Amino acid sequence: MKDALPHFARRMSRVQPNAVGALLRAGADPSITSFAGGYPDASLFPRDALQRHFSAAILNDGHTSLQYTVAEGNPRLRAEVVRMYARQGMNMDFENTLILQGSQQGLDLTAKLLIDPGDVIVTESPTFMGALVAFNCYEPRYVGIPIDANGMDTEVLALKLKQGLKPKFAYTIPDFQNPSGATMSTERRKHLVQLAALYDFIILEDTAYRPLRYRGKSPPTLLSLDKEDRVIHLGSFSKILAPGLRLGWMVAPSSMIEKFGILKLAADTQCSTLNMAVTAAYLQYNDLDHHVETLRQTYARKQDLMLKATRNNFPQEVSSTEPDGGLFLWLTFPDGFDTEVFMAEQALPHARVAFVPGRSFFPDSDQRNAARFNFSGPSDEKIEDGMARLGHLLKKHLVRT
Amino acid sequence: MKDALPHFARRMSRVQPNAVGALLRAGADPSITSFAGGYPDASLFPRDALQRHFSAAILNDGHTSLQYTVAEGNPRLRAEVVRMYARQGMNMDFENTLILQGSQQGLDLTAKLLIDPGDVIVTESPTFMGALVAFNCYEPRYVGIPIDANGMDTEVLALKLKQGLKPKFAYTIPDFQNPSGATMSTERRKHLVQLAALYDFIILEDTAYRPLRYRGKSPPTLLSLDKEDRVIHLGSFSKILAPGLRLGWMVAPSSMIEKFGILKLAADTQCSTLNMAVTAAYLQYNDLDHHVETLRQTYARKQDLMLKATRNNFPQEVSSTEPDGGLFLWLTFPDGFDTEVFMAEQALPHARVAFVPGRSFFPDSDQRNAARFNFSGPSDEKIEDGMARLGHLLKKHLVRT
Repeated sequence: MKDALPHFARRMSRVQPNAVGALLRAGADPSITSFAGGYPDASLFPRDALQRHFSAAILNDGHTSLQYTVAEGNPRLRAEVVRMYARQGMNMDFENTLILQGSQQGLDLTAKLLIDPGDVIVTESPTFMGALVAFNCYEPRYVGIPIDANGMDTEVLALKLKQGLKPKFAYTIPDFQNPSGATMSTERRKHLVQLAALYDFIILEDTAYRPLRYRGKSPPTLLSLDKEDRVIHLGSFSKILAPGLRLGWMVAPSSMIEKFGILKLAADTQCSTLNMAVTAAYLQYNDLDHHVETLRQTYARKQDLMLKATRNNFPQEVSSTEPDGGLFLWLTFPDGFDTEVFMAEQALPHARVAFVPGRSFFPDSDQRNAARFNFSGPSDEKIEDGMARLGHLLKKHLVRT
Repeated sequence: MKDALPHFARRMSRVQPNAVGALLRAGADPSITSFAGGYPDASLFPRDALQRHFSAAILNDGHTSLQYTVAEGNPRLRAEVVRMYARQGMNMDFENTLILQGSQQGLDLTAKLLIDPGDVIVTESPTFMGALVAFNCYEPRYVGIPIDANGMDTEVLALKLKQGLKPKFAYTIPDFQNPSGATMSTERRKHLVQLAALYDFIILEDTAYRPLRYRGKSPPTLLSLDKEDRVIHLGSFSKILAPGLRLGWMVAPSSMIEKFGILKLAADTQCSTLNMAVTAAYLQYNDLDHHVETLRQTYARKQDLMLKATRNNFPQEVSSTEPDGGLFLWLTFPDGFDTEVFMAEQALPHARVAFVPGRSFFPDSDQRNAARFNFSGPSDEKIEDGMARLGHLLKKHLVRT
């Protein structure tokens, strides 16, 4: 059977173990100090409120909250999503929303709807490796667009489009991009929306980190700039409430939501009725903005702690981004330094520290001298001690090479 | 943009609204007596136990139960799945299991792994329409094999295989099949496993209803008969615990579980950490078999009630299956009678009763004179009153045509 498998499934050859799964596993080993995940700080989960809402949903309303519901999601939760955007000055209808099993499911369903093998997806380079894992199943070709401190370089994209590039969609994380931390400028956002209209493609906007801003003011969403119904917009409760609920949402033109509702039904029938009811109740009876403000203050402090630990302990040749929000630092090491080899041979065995080697984030190139570090999940002590141990090791290692 | 969509997405044309979504919506309208869903009886959900386990998981263990976990699922829940099979005399390892967002997700991921456009899937005819919705996204060709009181007619399949049919996999619900209620005989199970070995295809075994047996003894699972690692076996907590938790599982060779783990990560990262922790605790500290025995007694009574209501109220020309378990009756109407037209024009507006017209269940034919009726979800009163109203209407309607 093992030998027979490849002949059964051409796609199986594309389904290969990858860095994400292995690193999530490494992060779960308690003896490792992991900067690898994208974990929120577990001490900030609003446990008491969630416990109360779960108890109420089960005891007072269990006949509906434990039963099946419709594929598009709990109507109260969809209404709460509409209210969240209304508070930010954006008007939409219930029919523009769909509840997802985390925003990751929005990446999968978008590629499922739009991609045939060989179609082009434009992404930032580097980009979220989980998106590449989702898209890979549909066998696209990738065109990576460089990203700098102002986000995806839309001039480079414009040139490629002019030269004949025909993407089905462009995937972007415009706010505190994963992994680089960069935020796309308002000018580039407008440019990207113009390019989508001119060259006839869809924009997949992933805003998982947008609420976690520590300094400055948010530029407008791509969704709000679009006048042609070309934006599929994703959001997540994982970073602002709790990942264990596995809930996110999509905002899109109602004609597309109708299609996505069928794909959602096909994929897993629906999200957990109970978790949707509880999240709707949480949003209705608690002050989410106040909770997010607490997250912001804690994560801003942790980011500062990690930046200081990097400056104090790492060799000068290693540079870091200093993002205005999000969960990650993106570190660049000297040319020729391979962070994947360093992690496997040095960091894990000798410093008991994990991070994500940069290579996994590049859609169409093989850059090995960068790495992503998460500061939201680990405790202050782990950040200070882990970065010190890693810095010590790096100084020895960089001197020797 | 609306006009532009088809040119973006060839697959979009395959993503069409279908009976399932519309009927789940009709079932959610409280003014309709719905026999359309596959809903468990909500009065039997073990609310108190679930409330206690949710509270404990959040308050005592929220730092892990509300956090991310690994794609393959909560290790304790995977161990509980292994224990469930061990109680039935089947030995397997932790690495043979994967936790799914309901068994529906197993249908999606299996097709995603194995099917390229044009590949053949064998199914029973009729078969579960939710499976067709999942498989459709991957653009297979279907070959439907007739089903009788002893399940899929494997002699018909054998003949087609001999004539050159080359399926990637055969999808079957061997126990209390949805929609027919039929259970595959032990002889046919052995034959199907032999055919898979001889003609080199995979069997996708869906056992969502298997625990709900009201009479007699279960034949062996296809999984237990297979010696060649050719069976992907799916189970569900939706019917035996609560659908609102959205949890099911897969049992398969560990080499395949590895691939499915990556597809799970790609699709939605993981199931709800919290719901998995609670379900593991429920299985560990409660007597699931005792709970299922209560379900069996209630559903056996409700099935009897619906059968009697059919006999007492429906015209003689309408016949019903009398399954030994499961959630459904499959009713056959006279030739030329169109249950879809009858539901839309008569049953819904005049009797305020919903069921599922049979047409949606046929993979490769257009049979319109059957319908699926669910007896587990509606109350005793709704079963008696709804079937009486429908019978009254049918008598008028069948006389007139």
